[in-house]
Amino acid sequence: MSGSLLVTGIGELVTNSPGSGDLLGAVADAAVAIGDGVVVWAGPEADLPDEHRGGASIDVGGRAVIPGFVDAHTHLVFGGDRSDEFARRLRGESYRQILAAGGGIHATVAATRRASDSDLIADAAARALRMLASGTTTVEVKSGYGLDTATEVRMLRAAAEVDAATPIDVVPTFLGAHVVDRGSDRDDYLRLVVGEMLPACAPLARFCDVFSDEGAFTVEEARIVLEAGLAHGLRPRIHADQLSHTGAAALAARLGAASADHLDHATPEDAAALREAGTVAVLLPGASFSLRSSPAPGRMLWDAGVTVALATDCNPGTSYVESMPLVVALACLEMGLTPAEALWGATRGGALALEMPDRGWIGPGAIGDLVVLDAPSHLHIPYRPGTALVDTVIKRGEIVAGLRPEADR
Amino acid sequence: MSGSLLVTGIGELVTNSPGSGDLLGAVADAAVAIGDGVVVWAGPEADLPDEHRGGASIDVGGRAVIPGFVDAHTHLVFGGDRSDEFARRLRGESYRQILAAGGGIHATVAATRRASDSDLIADAAARALRMLASGTTTVEVKSGYGLDTATEVRMLRAAAEVDAATPIDVVPTFLGAHVVDRGSDRDDYLRLVVGEMLPACAPLARFCDVFSDEGAFTVEEARIVLEAGLAHGLRPRIHADQLSHTGAAALAARLGAASADHLDHATPEDAAALREAGTVAVLLPGASFSLRSSPAPGRMLWDAGVTVALATDCNPGTSYVESMPLVVALACLEMGLTPAEALWGATRGGALALEMPDRGWIGPGAIGDLVVLDAPSHLHIPYRPGTALVDTVIKRGEIVAGLRPEADR
Repeated sequence: MSGSLLVTGIGELVTNSPGSGDLLGAVADAAVAIGDGVVVWAGPEADLPDEHRGGASIDVGGRAVIPGFVDAHTHLVFGGDRSDEFARRLRGESYRQILAAGGGIHATVAATRRASDSDLIADAAARALRMLASGTTTVEVKSGYGLDTATEVRMLRAAAEVDAATPIDVVPTFLGAHVVDRGSDRDDYLRLVVGEMLPACAPLARFCDVFSDEGAFTVEEARIVLEAGLAHGLRPRIHADQLSHTGAAALAARLGAASADHLDHATPEDAAALREAGTVAVLLPGASFSLRSSPAPGRMLWDAGVTVALATDCNPGTSYVESMPLVVALACLEMGLTPAEALWGATRGGALALEMPDRGWIGPGAIGDLVVLDAPSHLHIPYRPGTALVDTVIKRGEIVAGLRPEADR
Repeated sequence: MSGSLLVTGIGELVTNSPGSGDLLGAVADAAVAIGDGVVVWAGPEADLPDEHRGGASIDVGGRAVIPGFVDAHTHLVFGGDRSDEFARRLRGESYRQILAAGGGIHATVAATRRASDSDLIADAAARALRMLASGTTTVEVKSGYGLDTATEVRMLRAAAEVDAATPIDVVPTFLGAHVVDRGSDRDDYLRLVVGEMLPACAPLARFCDVFSDEGAFTVEEARIVLEAGLAHGLRPRIHADQLSHTGAAALAARLGAASADHLDHATPEDAAALREAGTVAVLLPGASFSLRSSPAPGRMLWDAGVTVALATDCNPGTSYVESMPLVVALACLEMGLTPAEALWGATRGGALALEMPDRGWIGPGAIGDLVVLDAPSHLHIPYRPGTALVDTVIKRGEIVAGLRPEADR
């Protein structure tokens, strides 16, 4: 799916264009021309060459246009829901108590194993379409609620189905090492991940992830899994230092991982290591918000020169958040990022975390993923939390949500 | 505008019905019959009398149904926006610095005075319709950005226009004593409020409000204004103890005010006084969220037996929030209310704060304001923050957003 479209009347165009003076490379009174799904021209409308006129076009009436959001960390495919557990936590039960009573992640594993392929796909596609409607044009999706080879494979196949059936681009990650399956011996489980799951899942995934934390995998176990993933051609990323400081961020840097995610307990030393390694910090403010815990030190990481991305962590246990606009608001209000930093992290930062340099910005050569805001400036995203500000979503030059082109009206 | 409609297939019906065992009076597998805009029957669908069948009906397929949200505190009518000020605060400027530089509330006063009647009405109606789409069926609207008699009157007329032009019910409040107009003598301004604004505005309002806090009006000044309002037939409500503890909540209790709003610095003694007086505590978690300040002690107030309402405080400076679902999530995650308490506060609590006993619940005699959630349970509202979970909005028995009745499909 790809199209050609001219977008004019842009009051504020956020280009994130490398080389421009400000972080967002904002251009006033702008236009963008997309040909065959790829941006061919972007700049002040007064400078638009005539060759780009004459085809399908929309005038957005002075609204702001931003790159499509790139949500670089989600668990979009799952069975069941855990709303009851959410309510129990608000009444004071701890996650540990809920886990001991058979809830927590193991409840989702059981529900995911029970779910039919068609239900897994339909539910994940519905989530993906809601994400698309709120401006997300690329989404990473992890396995990790199977914990057996068959279900891990089914989850990654479901992710591929969502990619094929919806306009959103899905980037699959293998997360067999999410937690040790209940009733399994720890070493046996690790051997299963490395010896059986990885060979079966690697052809279906682009990245290998491990949840390294208290109650999950040690840093040494994470290293074993990620190195095995690398041997199967999967780039590493890590759930790191969310619940405690274990040293997982430092491992991410040592391995040159694409990203270290969560980082609620990251230190300035971790920040320096991530910056040196070029590993992206993927911050997930929806998780700390939903868990009522302290957010990751986003301000510190940004100021230390780390490349920061923002993502939803969409999952049924600790962050059932689908909206990147809400994540941008949380990054500002809970982590102290500026609106420009947060928007950059939710677009360009996410693309860098996924090692997809062709998106998260708007300029010649970028894919034509644009979001028209029903607002004059990107500032309105965090300024008006909870309001649906997405007017139109354009994916590879085709309007997939919102306005119709002039020709169709 | 009012209609007759039968709603069947309700998986979970939140009635808030007085006398039922649990706070929300939830009924499984329920139906609701609305006749001429008023609920005539609600209960288990198996018990539905035949007399209520045969007219327009919708089957909501197992979804949850709640009473329409009652947003009891907004500043919906205003000119301009203050997104730039929002960004400056995130970069570290204080509200005091922004105020000194001509920003803050005085920027909105200037923009509101400049705005044409038609722009004021159109912008406020657009906000009201977005609120309606997110489930709000009744909204309180304050004046207070005029600070001169002519503009205060224009604001209240704009609120009446929004009431007439949209399905949402607008409840008007006079807030001439929002802040002393810039350049005015404090005593002169109070004389203007009481001697000229009140007589002009009272016929257009139901309540009189005062912002009593540091930098605004003292408790003694608030008493003078509210007693003058009472003499004009306006019931009192107060912006109380938001920025500091001034004793305004205690004044609200002494006057038997309908509500004391904000209460970020309320004490257990204030709670006891509010409970004794039957004054509703209207909590505004969108404001503390947007200001990055500590939220009001919602848990303490609820546990002290105070009637708690939740509202958006929608305004261009400190809480540009239109979504009651986000407010419910913030009340849970930032104030520690349970999902049931927060939902009750956002519906029944709001109705009590506005002294409108005919709404905020679902049962015979209540007006037919219902919201169908795209979820099986009310728990999903705070569990899935930022996701648009409103499937259909029914106002006085008419579908105003979402699904069409069977007959029309």
